[in-house]
Parts: sequence; C-alpha cells; structure tokens
Amino acid sequence: MAPSAVPVGSNDVAHLPLKLSGKANGASSHVEDVQMEAKDKTQYVLKSYRCLIADLCQQFNMGHPGSAMGMAAIGVALWKYAMKYSPKNAEFSNRDRFVLSNGHACLFQYCFLHLTGYNNMTFEQLTSYHSDRWDSYCPGHPEIEHEGIEVTTGPLGQGIANAVGLAMATKHLGAVYNRPGYDMIDNMTWVTIGDACLQEGVGMEAIQLAGHWRLSNLCVIYDNNQITCDGSVDICNAAEDINPKMRATGFHVIDVEDGNYDVEAIVKALVTARASQDKPTFINIKTTIGVGSAKANNADSHGAPFGKDEVANIKKNFGMDPSKHFEVPQDVYDFFREAVPRGQQLEKDWNALLSKYSAEYPELAKDFKKQMNGEMLDDWTKYIPKKEDLPTAPTPSRKSAGLACNPMAQNVRNFMVGTADLTPSVNMTWKDKKDFQHPDLRTACGINGDYTGRYIHWGIREHAMASISNGMAAFKQGCILPVTSSFFMFYIYAAPGVRMGALQGLQVIHIATHDSIGTGEDGPTHQPIELASLYRAMPNFLYIRPCDSEEACGAFLSAVAAKHTPSMISVARQNTQQYPQHSSRDGVQKGAYVFIEEEDADVTLIGVGAEMVFAVDSAKVLKEKHGIKARVVSFPCQRLFEKQPIEYKREVLQYRSKAPRVIIEAYSVNGWERYADAGYSMHSFGHSLPRDYVYGRFNFDAAKIAAKVAPLVEDVRKDGVESLRGEFRDLNADYERDVFHSAFGTSHVLS
Amino acid sequence: MAPSAVPVGSNDVAHLPLKLSGKANGASSHVEDVQMEAKDKTQYVLKSYRCLIADLCQQFNMGHPGSAMGMAAIGVALWKYAMKYSPKNAEFSNRDRFVLSNGHACLFQYCFLHLTGYNNMTFEQLTSYHSDRWDSYCPGHPEIEHEGIEVTTGPLGQGIANAVGLAMATKHLGAVYNRPGYDMIDNMTWVTIGDACLQEGVGMEAIQLAGHWRLSNLCVIYDNNQITCDGSVDICNAAEDINPKMRATGFHVIDVEDGNYDVEAIVKALVTARASQDKPTFINIKTTIGVGSAKANNADSHGAPFGKDEVANIKKNFGMDPSKHFEVPQDVYDFFREAVPRGQQLEKDWNALLSKYSAEYPELAKDFKKQMNGEMLDDWTKYIPKKEDLPTAPTPSRKSAGLACNPMAQNVRNFMVGTADLTPSVNMTWKDKKDFQHPDLRTACGINGDYTGRYIHWGIREHAMASISNGMAAFKQGCILPVTSSFFMFYIYAAPGVRMGALQGLQVIHIATHDSIGTGEDGPTHQPIELASLYRAMPNFLYIRPCDSEEACGAFLSAVAAKHTPSMISVARQNTQQYPQHSSRDGVQKGAYVFIEEEDADVTLIGVGAEMVFAVDSAKVLKEKHGIKARVVSFPCQRLFEKQPIEYKREVLQYRSKAPRVIIEAYSVNGWERYADAGYSMHSFGHSLPRDYVYGRFNFDAAKIAAKVAPLVEDVRKDGVESLRGEFRDLNADYERDVFHSAFGTSHVLS
Repeated sequence: MAPSAVPVGSNDVAHLPLKLSGKANGASSHVEDVQMEAKDKTQYVLKSYRCLIADLCQQFNMGHPGSAMGMAAIGVALWKYAMKYSPKNAEFSNRDRFVLSNGHACLFQYCFLHLTGYNNMTFEQLTSYHSDRWDSYCPGHPEIEHEGIEVTTGPLGQGIANAVGLAMATKHLGAVYNRPGYDMIDNMTWVTIGDACLQEGVGMEAIQLAGHWRLSNLCVIYDNNQITCDGSVDICNAAEDINPKMRATGFHVIDVEDGNYDVEAIVKALVTARASQDKPTFINIKTTIGVGSAKANNADSHGAPFGKDEVANIKKNFGMDPSKHFEVPQDVYDFFREAVPRGQQLEKDWNALLSKYSAEYPELAKDFKKQMNGEMLDDWTKYIPKKEDLPTAPTPSRKSAGLACNPMAQNVRNFMVGTADLTPSVNMTWKDKKDFQHPDLRTACGINGDYTGRYIHWGIREHAMASISNGMAAFKQGCILPVTSSFFMFYIYAAPGVRMGALQGLQVIHIATHDSIGTGEDGPTHQPIELASLYRAMPNFLYIRPCDSEEACGAFLSAVAAKHTPSMISVARQNTQQYPQHSSRDGVQKGAYVFIEEEDADVTLIGVGAEMVFAVDSAKVLKEKHGIKARVVSFPCQRLFEKQPIEYKREVLQYRSKAPRVIIEAYSVNGWERYADAGYSMHSFGHSLPRDYVYGRFNFDAAKIAAKVAPLVEDVRKDGVESLRGEFRDLNADYERDVFHSAFGTSHVLS
Repeated sequence: MAPSAVPVGSNDVAHLPLKLSGKANGASSHVEDVQMEAKDKTQYVLKSYRCLIADLCQQFNMGHPGSAMGMAAIGVALWKYAMKYSPKNAEFSNRDRFVLSNGHACLFQYCFLHLTGYNNMTFEQLTSYHSDRWDSYCPGHPEIEHEGIEVTTGPLGQGIANAVGLAMATKHLGAVYNRPGYDMIDNMTWVTIGDACLQEGVGMEAIQLAGHWRLSNLCVIYDNNQITCDGSVDICNAAEDINPKMRATGFHVIDVEDGNYDVEAIVKALVTARASQDKPTFINIKTTIGVGSAKANNADSHGAPFGKDEVANIKKNFGMDPSKHFEVPQDVYDFFREAVPRGQQLEKDWNALLSKYSAEYPELAKDFKKQMNGEMLDDWTKYIPKKEDLPTAPTPSRKSAGLACNPMAQNVRNFMVGTADLTPSVNMTWKDKKDFQHPDLRTACGINGDYTGRYIHWGIREHAMASISNGMAAFKQGCILPVTSSFFMFYIYAAPGVRMGALQGLQVIHIATHDSIGTGEDGPTHQPIELASLYRAMPNFLYIRPCDSEEACGAFLSAVAAKHTPSMISVARQNTQQYPQHSSRDGVQKGAYVFIEEEDADVTLIGVGAEMVFAVDSAKVLKEKHGIKARVVSFPCQRLFEKQPIEYKREVLQYRSKAPRVIIEAYSVNGWERYADAGYSMHSFGHSLPRDYVYGRFNFDAAKIAAKVAPLVEDVRKDGVESLRGEFRDLNADYERDVFHSAFGTSHVLS
C-alpha cells in the first residue's frame, strides 16, 4: 500500500530496528507522510467488526468465529495500513498477496474484502456465509475462484506453502524484469497462520525453504492464541519455544504483545517486515481467540457460534447495541473505503511506470506483459522433439521425459523446474541451467544461482514442493509453469498439495519417475503399487504413463496444453522398449489408442507405460504358442480417454466384440475394470530385487502372461464373453500368493 | 547394554554434564566397570568395516555406500558399547530399539547385525545385498520381516516417527508395569537420521512431539555429513541452525566434532543420552560421506558404488590389502562377538528380575506377560454393543464408531486412542480417559495426564500420528493397538504412514470421520471425493464404510480381528439412517451382503456408508414411480468381499442375472466398475454448502437417482444386459456438469 507508516524507531518493536531507509518490497516514499487514525476510532472499528463476526456465525448457527474475532486488529493493520492492493481491481499485477493459511477463519478475509470495497463482496454476499446459497462467494474456506482470494486454503499448512510460492514468484519475476528505477514487481506476500501451520509438516518444510531462500518479501503473521480444537496448545506442543526456533530457521522475529487491540504495534511490525532486505519475517502476535466473549481463550469459540444470548453479551461488553444485527456503521465504512482511491492511485502510478519502462526497455516490457498476461513466452510446441529425432534403442522413460521437457524448459522462460533432491535420477536439467537461489549464497558444492534461476532444489520436501508450486502457479495464472520431480512413490507425500492444485485448476506438471516395480533394489517401500489409483480418481487431474519416447512427447503435449489442469507424467527408471512403428503422440492425447491392430482378434491386451513390453511380447507368444490372435491397445491416460466420443472409445476397445480385454500393469488393478474383463496386475507391495529380476518375481513375463490369457480366451470361446460380466478375473493373483508363501513361510499379508 | 562406559565428566561432551548418578533408561550399575578398547584396535575395526561396505556395493555394482561408511564409528559406539541387545534373541523384550531412519544406509545395520552375531545374518546373507536372491535378508532398505530389524524404513522421515512411537511404547509400558526395583521395561530407542529426516515434514512433526512428551528414552543420532543426492545440503538448507532449533524444540543437544574416527566421543554422547531424565537427546555428529574414498564429502558416494579401482584405492588408503575382498578378520569378529554372552547375561538378569516381579506382583506380572506376548488383556468382543442396544433413530456414523469402539478402548488396555486435534468431532473419548502426557505437564486448559494415559493428543499432525502409531504397534506385535482419528480428508496427509503400516503388517485402526460430501460447509477442501480409491487399492488394508451403528460394530469386529492388517473405518459427520431390520455386523465382515432382497429384481442398487439412504430410498421410488423392482446390497468393504468364495459373491451380486447393478456413492467411482454396470457418483471436488444441501447440490436425491436408473433398466430390457459390457455408465455425470456451468459460468475444471 502506498501510504503506510508510523513513526520510525519505536520501542514497541523489540527485536528489529526499523530500517526503512532502503527501498525494499514495495516500501514507498510516502512512508513518513501517513498517520494512524485516532485510537478511539480504531477501537470502535474493532468492536464493530467483532460483533459482525459473532452475528455472521450466529445467523445459520454454524461457523468459525473465534480466530476471526481474535485477528481483528491484524486485519485493520493489514487492510487499512500495511497492504498494497486495489479493491476495484483485485487482479492488479503488483498487488501484495494475502494468504489466510488458517482458512477456517475465512470470515476475517471476507469482512475486510467487504469493508474495503471489493466489487463482488457485497453486504448481501457477506451474509450468505454458511447459507444454502450455492452461488455464495463466502464458502467455509476461502476459494481461489472468488475475487480477492489468492489461493484456496483450509487444509492446514497449505496456505503458508502457497505463500512461499507467491513470494518466490515475486522474487523471480522481479529479478528477471526489474531494472534500476523500475521495480515492476516488488510486492509483499503476507500470510496469517494459526498454531496448526506450525505443527503440520508441510508448513515446517515451507518455512525452512523460505528461510533458505531468504524471501525478504514474505511476512508470516502468527495469530498466537494458543488454542486449538482440543484445548490449549500446550497439550500437544508444550516444549517448543517458537521465536528462537524461527530465528534458527532464518527468520527475523518480531513480537507483538497485545494483538487484540494494539493496531499501532502491529502496523509497526508489518512495516518493519516490508523493509526487510535479507530475511523473511515472523511476527508473533499474541491474541485471544473469541476475544470479548465469555468463551474467550477457550477452544469452544473455535468452530461453533456463541449462541444468541452470548452474542448479545458480546455486544454489551463492547458497548454496542445488542438489539442490532449485522451492523456496519457508515463511519466504519469510511474508515476503510479510502482504500479504493488509494488503490486506484497505486494502479495509476504503476501504469505510468509501466509506460516509461516500455519506452526504455521495449523488448523486456513486451515479454513482461506477455508473461504477466499468462502467455507462454515462446512457441513451446516447437521444442518437443519430432518422432524421427527420438531414440530407437531401449531408453529409460525417465530419460524420454527429459528429452521432451528439457528443451522447452530451457527455452521457454515460463517454466520453473525443480526436484526433491533427485537431480541425478530425474534427468530434468539442461545445459547451463541456473538455480533459483539467493544471489549471495555460496554453497560448499559450488552450485549457486540467483533469483532469475529457474531450476529449484526443493530438498527432501516433496509435500512443500507440490504446495509451493501451487503458489507459484497462482501468482498469475499461466505466468509461471512449475514442473516438479521425484520418485513416483514419494508423490504420496506430496498428494495433499497435488490435490489442492487440481482443486484450484492450477497448472503444475509433476514428473514422477521410478514408477511401477521397475525401481528394483529399493524394494517395496519405493514401489508405488497403489498410488496411481489415487491420481486416476482425482478430478481435474491427468495421470499419464507413456510407454516410450514418442508417448512421452505426447504426454507433454497434453500436459502443457492443459492450462487449468495439473498433470503427472509417470515414467520408469529402467530401459523401456521404443516402438516407433506403433507409438503415437496423437494417440496419447486421446488417452488410449490402437497400438497393434489384428483382424478378428481373440483378445485385446491393454499395455501401459513400462509394462507395454509385456503386452506386445505376450501377443507374440499367444500367436506363436497358443494360436491366439491378440490386438494391443496403449492406454496412457484414463481421463483423456474419458473425454473422447463414444464412437472412438468403441473403436479402440471394441466394446461390442466377443473378445475379452486384459489389462497388463504392475499396479493394483482398481479402476481398470471399466475397460477390461481381466487384469494381470500386482496384489502386494513388491519386493527388493534388481530391476531385471523384480518383474520376473511377480510373473511379469510374456510366456507366463500368455499362459494365463490363453485359458481366458478358451473360456470365452466356450461360455461367451458375457460369462465374464461382473466376474472380473485377476489372472496374476494365484502366482503372487505362491511367491509370498515360498519366500517367508506363511504370508502375514492379506493381499 | 549392560557394560557401557567411559570416564565420566569428560570435556568432549560439551553441552551436557554427564549425569549418570540417577538411573534412567536402563543405565546399569556396570557403568564404571567397562573400558574402551585400545584405540588402534578400534581404528582397525573401522577400516575393515569401511572396506567391507565398499566391497558389498561393488559386488553387484549397486547400492548406497557413502553414509554406511561415514557412520562406521557411530555403529561401533552403538553395537559395541552403548546398546542393550541380545544377538541370539533378537526379540528380547527389554532390548534397546534401533531404527535406521536413513534406511538407504541399510548396509550399516546389516554389517553390525552380522558382526555381532545375529543368527540369520550370516556372511552368505550379508553378501546377498543387491543380488538376485529373492530370499535375501538384505533388501535395499531394512524390512521388519527380518531378524534384528525393528521397522521397515526407506521413505525418509518415517523411521524417526516410528522411533518416537517405540519410545512412547516404552514410556507407557514402563509407567504401567514398572514398580520400585522392577524396571521391567526401560529400554532406550536409538534412531539414526541423515539430513533428509530434518527436512521431511513428518520428521519435524515427530521431533516436535518427542520434545513435547519429553521422551528422555529417545536419542536421535544425526549423521551430519551435509551431503544429499543433489550436492551439499546448503543448496536447500543454508539458513538453518540445527542445534538451537533442536533445543527450542525440547531436546538436549550434544555435538561430536569428529564422527568419522572418535568412537570415544560418540560413546560418551550416547551414554549421556541414556542418562537423560527429562528430555530426548539430539546428537549432532559430524561425519564425512564416503570417508576414505576419493569421493569423500561428495554426493557421488551417496547412491552408487565406487568402481573397482577406487575400491582398491580405499583399501590402500586404509592400509588394507586391495587384493582381498569381503575380508572380515577374526579379530574384528572377536571385537564384536562379546555382544553374544553380554546379551545372554542381559536376558538372564532380566528373566531373574521377571521371576521376582512375578512373585511380588503376580496379577500385574500376569498382565505384563500377556501384553508383552501380544495378547489382548481382556475379551474385547464383549464390549462391542449388541444390536438391541444400538440407537434406532438417525445417528451420525461417527457417533456409531464411538459407540462401538469406546467401551473396548476404555476396558481393554492394549488400546491407545488418539486424535489429530479433533476430539470434539471424532467422539473417540470415554469417561475418565487419561491422556498420555509427561506427568509434570500442567496445561493452560487443565487437561493433564501421565505416561499410563491411553488417549493421545497428536496436535495437527496427521502424518506423524499415523507413522508414530506404526512405531507403537511395532514395539511388540499385538502389545499395543493404536487407534488414530481425524477427518477422512486429512488421511491424505497421513497416507505415507498408513501405507507403511500396511506394508509392515502393523495393526493400527484409523477412524476417518466426515467422509463423503456430508461434511458440508467446510467445502471441497474437506470433501474426500477421490481418497477412498487409494485406500481400496492399497494391499493389506481394510477400508470399511459402515452405513449405521450395526455396521459400525461389524467394522470394528473386522478391524480388531485383523492382527496383521491396518484398517480405516470411514464414517460420516451427519445423521445416518439406522436400518436394524436390514443391517448386519456379520454381513460387514463378508465385505458386502444383501441388504434388501427382491425376487426377480430389475436392478441391484449398491449402497455404501452414508449414501445407503439413497439406495434404499431410490429403490422405493423406483417401485412406486417407475414400477421397477430393485434389490439393495450393502457394500462396506471391497477387500473383505474379495476374500469370499465365488459362490457367495454370485449370490450377493447376482453376476449372472439379467439385471444391471448400480453403485451409489458420493465419491469418484473408480474401482466400483468391478461390481457394477453403472455408477451414480461424484465427478468434481464438491462444494461448500450446509450438510442438508450439499447432497442435493450434486443430485444425490432418491427421485433424481431413480429417474436416471429407470432409463438404464429400460435399455437393458431392450438391448440386454450384455450391451452394458465395457460401457460403464456414469449416471450422474451430466447433472454435475450442469451444476458447474450454472454456478461459475464456464467451468475451468476438467471433470
């Protein structure tokens, strides 16, 4: 916000000197000009707001009033004094980003959006909280679809991770585009958290990374009320001393003792945070949950309304009229609505700066506008290799993924590619890639970088990798395309973040290597037998398993084109056969396609990803040894296939034929029953064996598969294919049971 | 270990005085008696061991040598001096537990198991590491199935969480059973970690909890080599100062400067850790990955062998003979094998103590033996309510779960029940429940406890809740039965831990409330549309959705009986209809059963959990409005159903009938295609609406469902049921698309 300020050097801000001299994170020259409103006025605003929260929860007898009331002074400090934003243009590019990581306190955000004059957050909308209106802008947790909401929050720990991603985006774009005198992108990211975000692992991972990257434009505002659902926080976190812990993690720490009423102290802390040039800031603000009510400082005020009598009492306590409901006096509006012209001025100034910038740096400005507009900076499709340039010898499909992605990532600067500490395994780097790092970092291994870098070392933090990537993608949709990478198995750690990306329609591409059981020696802990079932069932998500380099190119064509849908491209560690005569990038984009056609086939074998080789080779064995004609379908992505017209589906899968279909995949078969009558699949967690042996161990072997498919075909000849209806056959179940018993005596595993 | 000692009061251990006077965590009176071996002997052992590691990785040109070599001195300090264990009886009840949380360094553990004389870890077995032997005891990560391995590790962060659980089990059992002079259970838990476990969220959650509970019997040994796969740790963790951070989290911290060679300093630190009476201990040991090789202190030594020439160089560097391979000189065996008689003496002493204890406390001793033998302390089945005692009015199934579980948990002391900060929502407490807490804790809200307590406040840490519970369950199989609870949606955070429980056959019961979309106002972030697909696909796991109180009783009968299989009982927030005339606990245990039979039915409706009401009510509407006869099947658990004989399956689902089957569930339908021809399901993430409205919003309404089922039945009458084969019908897909478009203009969500 342009006019944000307090006298400098106050004693209230204990741990940090106010160093507003340097220009950092959008601190403006107006700093000394603005005065705080009179204290009594501010206190009146706090009371009005708190009564409004109590009413809003009481209305439908549901909701979370406690922390929304506790944070009142934080809200005033943010929206009235500290934040840069424009209520009439929620999308203003260089706005400060605000994330409510304690999303259950959503009324806090909704009320301030209303009070400061956001278009959509009318009074009528505000009072739709917890109503039966399906078109309410006030859902139980903030949702990205609605004006003024940067990211959907609610699952605890996600919002703070998103905020780290938003702050990274600012640092990156600023480093790329800003020039002396032209700080085109220098916004702050403010994130409020409760006790939960300091307990959830993903929150702690994200905090570590913010410290590591010295994101001085990030301010974590801790609503320290020491209450969670179960009682006081000391029932599950009595030993922790949070301030030294945060300092040891690379944060500045500021205490605010009276967070309930002392708006000035909070403003000072926020202004100090904005002025930081070297580290993110953690403001530890002591508040009282449900302040002003009889349930203050009590878990009872967290997630339930107070009851009519107590709402009346709250109003009496605050000297307000208990007979009035949803009362927003005009002077409260007046208090906040200066935000509207202030925001318009902010935009005007920025647009003027953009004009001068465009004149002085025309090429750069062109790119800047393009990227801020969510467009790709270059035609990405031209960097995906042509079929004729792909390898024909067996190639690990993880390498194929790199072949398809790396030239794009290298040349199209919207891409930011990272890995959860598996650079040597995932093959997602390119020549002369530069890391995203603080420019002053000097590492022991000599790999450094700066904020213009587009390769990210996430450390061993898969969950934060996914959740922070969502934040980068949310900075401005289409502006940055984050690509993450790890072993597929460890996307089970990242799943909550991946889900939140799908739910929000944020495009992130996840490269999941070492899929299936081919990871070998690492054993069952690293063999993701059942995880694909989650990602295939997840709405608005593409889980794609390409079988070779050509299919990997198809996977990227689908994933990069899906502007509002995240994807996972699932590839194998081991060499996979290349099928230039069969595989098709166009086919991948349809989800499934005929790989090898055969007239009057007796059976359709469905091959997927690294297991395609078994489908193709079994088809040969079936013909040669069993006199059975098999056609082969490649099926890299169920969701893409579902989008095809029924005619195409019938052509590929031959629903109406008399031939059965068999899916061959080294995963749990769940979900394939839609497309197949029988499955050759996994029923246990795998085994530690060298990659060339582990498939054999679980009977993935063309001869064995053919030996199980042949009797199925026989049965169908005898009893008709309708005999299979509702009796899906697990062709590999018996084999696997044998394996387990012979290995360790009686199996204790219920497969 | 009985004889463990060094001179007291050395200056090497900087941060803590050695306070061995008090008796803590099995510190024995032998402390002053034992001397360190001569230094040159120790150094010779270190060299031999390190060369052996290099050889073992070189043999099959695979493996993780670096940290196993770096930790040599830590291993000698543990197995030679600090740990209490008995190689000839790996299951000795009061043994110290050792967890290799950096599981990729498994050779470290395998070698010391071999050197100290564990029965199964023969030299032949040791050299099977990374071989093609499927019966190797040396998989790529330690696995619980094998002698001397406490838990399966590998996925980073899991092991340290397991270790916290093991330490909790010791504290709990000790508090329950120990009496003055009879410390029947007072073992230490030692856990080694690398840099990764300090970055993974679950590791940080577990560390917080260990600090909170003041688990003085836990020692975290940090193999601080500052190297991960991608390079030096400062590329992703440069800002963190770990020692003050650990102190701020409630740990004692001890530094060891030369962790490569200074065994004595490590022993001192370990002995000091054992002596702690108030806090867990973090030993920060500086080591060099791949020490002795040319790749020392380099990421290249992490996950790949050195190459033949370099292995020879390593041996030369250490003054060993490069022409010799897998050399274990007799004096190295002699150095370690004193562990055998020492362990036997330990057992003998403990058994003698047990005899005296049994004489003095016969009742207590009886229970102690029973529990340590993995038996339930009481007949748990008798506490599950009888059908006639269950409510008949609509009841939230989360309450039903409490009705079934709480009397058991109250009376059968093997149960330890906890929640991730949702006590008010999950209904899993009982009268006079006592919390598991440090006895000195005095909380602000007045809820205290001690180590005998069996109710656990996990805080907002779902992942650690699951992973630590695995550790409690692993203390001695069957000894403690952990029950966790949270919203079903947040078991996506816990999934990596839940999976590790299933993989290890560790019985933990997870109570997942607020399933389906009935959670209402909390919105799509809290509506677990797709998560059941993961848990239904997970091997060795029971995902059970009971529809009413009777079925909830059935769910617990299955879950508690499954001694080697974890379960999830998935229940709803909202009132669910009770069906005493239809529902059956026996039916639940078969996975699915006929709920309402109908002769010559036109259609079978499959109802599940909270959506059963739609199946039952649609059947009525179909009959009354459409003249269609519908039978209803209840299907709470797919895996249990799969275990039934084919005859039973045919009877329930009538595979061979001409009537179609329709699954009705407010989840992604993936996986139900095995049992149904059509699905009435969810295709998006849900919506924030009051619970009574959210179902309607997604067309879960008996009349609407019937209106979609009727044309299906018509089609089947016309075209035959075989027309449905391979063309699974999504009966609710069109409705949902409409919903989205009308709500927010063009949907950006690819459903």
